[in-house]
Amino acid sequence: MSDDSLAPIRTVDVTRVGPAGAVRTSDRAAAEEPLDVRLHGRSFAIIMRTPGKDRALAAGFLLSERVIRSADDLGAVEHCRHPDQTRAHHVVDVFLRGGAAERVPAMLEQRRNIVANSSCGVCGRATIEELATDIPPIASDAVCAVEVVRRLPDRLRSTQATFDETGGLHGVALFTLAGDLVTSAEDVGRHNAVDKVFGSLLLDDKPIPAGVLVVSGRVSFEIVQKAWIAGVPVVVAVSAPTSLAIDLAKQAGIALLGFVRGESLNIYTHTARIAGV
Amino acid sequence: MSDDSLAPIRTVDVTRVGPAGAVRTSDRAAAEEPLDVRLHGRSFAIIMRTPGKDRALAAGFLLSERVIRSADDLGAVEHCRHPDQTRAHHVVDVFLRGGAAERVPAMLEQRRNIVANSSCGVCGRATIEELATDIPPIASDAVCAVEVVRRLPDRLRSTQATFDETGGLHGVALFTLAGDLVTSAEDVGRHNAVDKVFGSLLLDDKPIPAGVLVVSGRVSFEIVQKAWIAGVPVVVAVSAPTSLAIDLAKQAGIALLGFVRGESLNIYTHTARIAGV
Repeated sequence: MSDDSLAPIRTVDVTRVGPAGAVRTSDRAAAEEPLDVRLHGRSFAIIMRTPGKDRALAAGFLLSERVIRSADDLGAVEHCRHPDQTRAHHVVDVFLRGGAAERVPAMLEQRRNIVANSSCGVCGRATIEELATDIPPIASDAVCAVEVVRRLPDRLRSTQATFDETGGLHGVALFTLAGDLVTSAEDVGRHNAVDKVFGSLLLDDKPIPAGVLVVSGRVSFEIVQKAWIAGVPVVVAVSAPTSLAIDLAKQAGIALLGFVRGESLNIYTHTARIAGV
Repeated sequence: MSDDSLAPIRTVDVTRVGPAGAVRTSDRAAAEEPLDVRLHGRSFAIIMRTPGKDRALAAGFLLSERVIRSADDLGAVEHCRHPDQTRAHHVVDVFLRGGAAERVPAMLEQRRNIVANSSCGVCGRATIEELATDIPPIASDAVCAVEVVRRLPDRLRSTQATFDETGGLHGVALFTLAGDLVTSAEDVGRHNAVDKVFGSLLLDDKPIPAGVLVVSGRVSFEIVQKAWIAGVPVVVAVSAPTSLAIDLAKQAGIALLGFVRGESLNIYTHTARIAGV
């Protein structure tokens, strides 16, 4: 299994901008890929995860979901072996035994009745494929100056009243391309903070400007997905992006920047949107 | 609406341990509460969120889920006004208009067919209530020495091979009460890393020891929930816990510690499980 998508780290291209100028180089990003956990042959959950310990992830997930109570309930936990499955290494087949096996049909049925939230990373692949087919890439020629980008993390931090007190919240802010604050929000869930930012504008019946979304921590694919749907062409993270966030940004026409700290920053995609590099 | 559960910050009791000893004081934690987003009177999603900008969260969430395409699709977005609803401030009723309104029944039906993942925070309240009724608190008299706890974040970090390279992964490790490493895992999703830790033991047919779970970042309720199900009596976070994580730990019989850095640490619940304080 030499497939690159199985490694926990992926090599990605990056434009690294520092005090001495920009250099085109490569970087290593945490891999993020969907895993399909199947129960007796039927899909039970699709989990966005870093490849590695997939069988352990499937078993632990089923424990957390209370599908199993102990190792005694586990029969086979195997990567899919079907020859037609090109993504077989992203599928784990689980078979239960004893009383747990008898409860499987009821559990699968019950699961159909639980509401879902694609923003948590579940159903990621389905969503990405769906997006790819019916949302065009962001075509605007929006450009943001690198000296504007450098100031945004500090300006985000200055909006984070609650973080300063608790250290426990993610902050997200939307700025215009000129660097003016449009709106910001905080939440224990980073994806919630993004939804609050865009939702505030919707409630005020204001258009979402083609500006810069700044997030306080890491960027996973779901943040890029929300930016794409909202038509925001630049996403800036204070910390690291995942490999899937980079892939999606490339496809979406979004300039994705990470590790924006002091004079340094990394541009992972659509470098042409960042002026002065 | 003076309900304390509406504030983005909640005051919590804490035992703060520093070089000069322990002091019982109060601290401020980021609040985490479930919000029920209803579409035309039917529950569409339950989102674990920090209270505040709830209507914006609902609107932005519906945009991200592609239920609405613009503000034009929004009719009313209001906190629930039903007099019988004691938790009305944690319910937002959304009514769409035009073509979007006509698509609501189909969207609600389609949603039933999407798999869900309670570990992402959706369906949190249902899960907490369910747990409370049928899992007893962890009754063991397990105790961990404070000098053991202090060393664990560094030891977790030393297991994080990928983090060092990418800065993009959450690390989680399980230790015995004596401080011996049992197993560890990394993932872009913190909850996945926890599932991988417990799942590894299940696959090896080893019991999950009543030890100490250490997580590299913040602790939300879902991590405490997973520890409870696995019977782990001590949870240690390098960073902050949320208010709901603290509530759940109290109920679960779990000692929850946060901000474990150098000589300092905070004990939020079940202080008796930490010896030498």
